[in-house]
Amino acid sequence: MGIVLVNAAVSLDGFIAGPNHEMDWIFDHQFLPDEPIGAIDDVIRTTGAILTGRGSYEVGRRSERSETSSAFGGRWSGPEFVLTHRPPADDETREVSFLSGSIAQAVSTALAAAQGKSLLVLGANVVRQCLDEDLIDEILLLLVPVLLGDGISLFGAPGGRQIKFETVSVAQAGQVAFLRFRRRG
Amino acid sequence: MGIVLVNAAVSLDGFIAGPNHEMDWIFDHQFLPDEPIGAIDDVIRTTGAILTGRGSYEVGRRSERSETSSAFGGRWSGPEFVLTHRPPADDETREVSFLSGSIAQAVSTALAAAQGKSLLVLGANVVRQCLDEDLIDEILLLLVPVLLGDGISLFGAPGGRQIKFETVSVAQAGQVAFLRFRRRG
Repeated sequence: MGIVLVNAAVSLDGFIAGPNHEMDWIFDHQFLPDEPIGAIDDVIRTTGAILTGRGSYEVGRRSERSETSSAFGGRWSGPEFVLTHRPPADDETREVSFLSGSIAQAVSTALAAAQGKSLLVLGANVVRQCLDEDLIDEILLLLVPVLLGDGISLFGAPGGRQIKFETVSVAQAGQVAFLRFRRRG
Repeated sequence: MGIVLVNAAVSLDGFIAGPNHEMDWIFDHQFLPDEPIGAIDDVIRTTGAILTGRGSYEVGRRSERSETSSAFGGRWSGPEFVLTHRPPADDETREVSFLSGSIAQAVSTALAAAQGKSLLVLGANVVRQCLDEDLIDEILLLLVPVLLGDGISLFGAPGGRQIKFETVSVAQAGQVAFLRFRRRG
């Protein structure tokens, strides 16, 4: 059985996007070196499915930097699930499925589709729902050296509960700190 | 001239304390190894003065884990400045001075007292004021593998502006990631 992994690039103040889902802060600056990053290759190789929320899905669709999928700039392909009660009528991408049940059901469905590989969870809203239901096994943060000042926090609004992790690995590639944490049993 | 350094232990979701300034999350768990930590020794050695806000000052005073100063568990001593318009009547500690002017004046005064060493800035409110006035040179985060879910954010409430840094160093000691960033010129 694969793990459920949160993987996101975050600013020093914990934002994954600007106030209106702007992602240009990631692309505006050359934070990563041109050569392949082992930690990113590992995630691409070990990811079997992706579960995201409607917000991140729309950001991916609008992105001019990818074709059907924004996941890893098109370097990954596989089953993608979007948790939403408002599935769009016009998405003909074969690999995207829309789920409207509970977060636990969505994770279970997506994890089965991952066929033993990891399930990658993207998007602040879905991440928060997973944390509330204790569904996250690991977190891989790509910490980018910029303060955004405002935006969408990876871990959502205050009001959550305390959850303990252990530090698995700490590394640097270019300007980015790669920080991996595992849920404490 | 010394630098102005923000140094704080933060949770994965960016909190330096619980909703009521609780610091027990830091002490409840053995995040750091027993042996001396080079990165912490460096900060102690290179710090010439501390500037803090009234909130952090009160937490330090109440702490049973130190005597007059909570800075580094009593391993550091030197001039401490508290930015407040409500100086307490009953503090007889010789090393603590209360400042009520602007943040820029407070940083200037404290930096002069540091005599060429670094000025350490503590406390969410003072940190945010310093960032707003572009007074921070470096940030040293001690990232602790726990999600607090709620509390006092190191970088304050949303509404700040974007500030770029560069990554100076990324290291691990025990369960803690030591992450140092320098303001981009």
